[in-house]
Amino acid sequence: MALKAELVAIGDELVSGQALDTNSQWLARSLAALGVETRFHSSIGDDMDENLGALRHAFGRAELVVTTGGLGPTQDDLTREALARVAGVELVEDPASLAAIAGFFERRNRAMTERNRVQALFPAGSEPIANRVGTAPGIWMRLGRATCICLPGVPYEMKVMFEEQVAPRVRSLMAARGDTRFILERKLNLFGRGEADVEASALDLTARGREPMVGITASDATISFRVRSSSATETEAASALEGTLATIRARFADILFSEGDDELQHAVLAELARSGKTLAVAESCTGGLIADRVASLAGASEHFLGGVVSYSNASKSALLGVPAELIARVGAVSPEVAEAMAVGARGRFGSDLAVSVTGIAGPSGGTPEKPVGLVYLGLATAEGVRSRKLELGPEQPRRVIQSRSAKHALNWVRRELLGLE
Amino acid sequence: MALKAELVAIGDELVSGQALDTNSQWLARSLAALGVETRFHSSIGDDMDENLGALRHAFGRAELVVTTGGLGPTQDDLTREALARVAGVELVEDPASLAAIAGFFERRNRAMTERNRVQALFPAGSEPIANRVGTAPGIWMRLGRATCICLPGVPYEMKVMFEEQVAPRVRSLMAARGDTRFILERKLNLFGRGEADVEASALDLTARGREPMVGITASDATISFRVRSSSATETEAASALEGTLATIRARFADILFSEGDDELQHAVLAELARSGKTLAVAESCTGGLIADRVASLAGASEHFLGGVVSYSNASKSALLGVPAELIARVGAVSPEVAEAMAVGARGRFGSDLAVSVTGIAGPSGGTPEKPVGLVYLGLATAEGVRSRKLELGPEQPRRVIQSRSAKHALNWVRRELLGLE
Repeated sequence: MALKAELVAIGDELVSGQALDTNSQWLARSLAALGVETRFHSSIGDDMDENLGALRHAFGRAELVVTTGGLGPTQDDLTREALARVAGVELVEDPASLAAIAGFFERRNRAMTERNRVQALFPAGSEPIANRVGTAPGIWMRLGRATCICLPGVPYEMKVMFEEQVAPRVRSLMAARGDTRFILERKLNLFGRGEADVEASALDLTARGREPMVGITASDATISFRVRSSSATETEAASALEGTLATIRARFADILFSEGDDELQHAVLAELARSGKTLAVAESCTGGLIADRVASLAGASEHFLGGVVSYSNASKSALLGVPAELIARVGAVSPEVAEAMAVGARGRFGSDLAVSVTGIAGPSGGTPEKPVGLVYLGLATAEGVRSRKLELGPEQPRRVIQSRSAKHALNWVRRELLGLE
Repeated sequence: MALKAELVAIGDELVSGQALDTNSQWLARSLAALGVETRFHSSIGDDMDENLGALRHAFGRAELVVTTGGLGPTQDDLTREALARVAGVELVEDPASLAAIAGFFERRNRAMTERNRVQALFPAGSEPIANRVGTAPGIWMRLGRATCICLPGVPYEMKVMFEEQVAPRVRSLMAARGDTRFILERKLNLFGRGEADVEASALDLTARGREPMVGITASDATISFRVRSSSATETEAASALEGTLATIRARFADILFSEGDDELQHAVLAELARSGKTLAVAESCTGGLIADRVASLAGASEHFLGGVVSYSNASKSALLGVPAELIARVGAVSPEVAEAMAVGARGRFGSDLAVSVTGIAGPSGGTPEKPVGLVYLGLATAEGVRSRKLELGPEQPRRVIQSRSAKHALNWVRRELLGLE
């Protein structure tokens, strides 16, 4: 029997709907990867009675209770005290945690307020979990047959704490109770075909009851297969997983771009590194989105030289050398201008490749001839320059058109680097 | 007392984390607009015992229970039967619902399967809620003092059903119980001070039991006050809300940048529009993030001329005119280069203002003298150029350093346009 978990997300902003709880989904998946089966999620507000009620209910139906939120320094933050009350113990100050919090402020040359001191309080008998990237330590506590883990609500802090400190301890907990079910999960990501189209080619894989289990999801035009293999031994689970992955890789080779959490920009950067080439970008309607996606990656500076966001027509000429006469004649949203932008960026940055985007992201600016969603990409290489037309609208919102344009541009660069174009 | 609600989201894909429950957030906000206060969210899997337990628990603590999911035609769909069991009644077929389901298939020239017939079963004593856009009807049922509403899990079907049929009935329910409570909510957003620091200046506002209620949350260094006013009349609620908003506006005037969901880039674009000025950017370590945030907004092209992502040193010289000699002498991450980048961008784009960023986003590239997180901003205007130093590291991840840098840069532009600098 897998260990059963309940996730309790705490915060008025969550129950009122002012914020969306994404921590619980992440935790459920991360726990599943450890072989822990999440059976319940609960969200409650910053209210002591509700905290007490929810914790008691959770301990009654789950062996592992993981809370997120309510560990901050403010009066709203009740998790520490609620857990102490449920356990029937006092809160005591932990000197090491207090020193860590003080150090966090010192390194930033900021004064620690008196209120931050409450973050060093813990229910007697619990163990602090250090927070390497924020001020709120977590809590690990046994309560009878159940284990309670309290994590910060800030997603980044929660994730770092879980991965670095909680996951290894959960693994030990599972081993101690003789739980040796191995669950392996892998995600494969595809771009360039519609979800229904991909699904129709994968009905044998996604059939209910199939082992390993295959799920298909779509997010912003990226299609992902999630393969989940579960077995009594790691070898068995891995072997079954590998068989299914091989099937998917072979069947969708033309559009598969990454495995795991890697996005198109990761694939582009990896191919730039492999080929030793450099990239520059020239963006109009995407307004810096392609550059941002590439530059968000560590190590980007080795292969990404930069870009021009030529939002105004004048800047297309001044910074990229696109002839003003050309823009006047064919319009800024045209294959000719896309090509001139790419050539200009390649020349100015001295890069091996340059990709450009010019289009109408909307909501205004569309005409019957050039509707919202009309986008041209340009790609300049040592061999010359080409352009490509995208029709992404007209009913899509601005942000979707920008994001899809960026993905198509990155995918074109990726395929060019792989010699697939 | 506002009507208290619990939302119960049903589905294995939700508790396992394979899908994210966005229905509950939408429902909580929609119910709040009707004066219903959501206090609890729960997610459970497709398991009868868990369904029964969750429903009984919900009826014990909430007067309005709204479920989503579990109304489909498959064996996994247990909501109908679970509700009947909790109510202690039989399931009975509703001829009108059966006819509606058959009609749904007929209109699509598809055969109705025998399994779809179960979607016309309802707990005795409940009322069907017609589904105009799908096959699963909803359920409305009184159970003692509580009311249970079962909605489909498909977000679009759920929303149409709620807005067209459920919201009017909830309004009648509120009126029948003499509940004419008006709830108004507002969010105010601040940037430039730490959460604990802001909280320490707002203890009178965030004290528990205060009316209107004030909550404080932090997200990526933006601090938000959420003010919630609840009163018997709309005038009273509005007046109390306005009083608290005025207090916050006066006390935090120096760091308040927006109300509602507007981010710093919205405030910048609004100030550019008000002043009739134009902006350009020069980004190194933020790699296009500032440009992307501004360009993500509809209407940005009126006031945002563009930017240069000068990731490589050569491009700082070639595209922004930063002397190579200066970079060699003081380094790319320096106040001098930040200022030269801003002046260069202002000149090339012909904008009224230009803001620049150069820094070390990490994870590598830091030195003892110039650690990860050291960032310089430059701001060029008609009056001249200035620079500013930020210390955002060293243990923060690359993406946080990039985002904070972008926020500081946008906030500087905002304050400059307002004459606060």
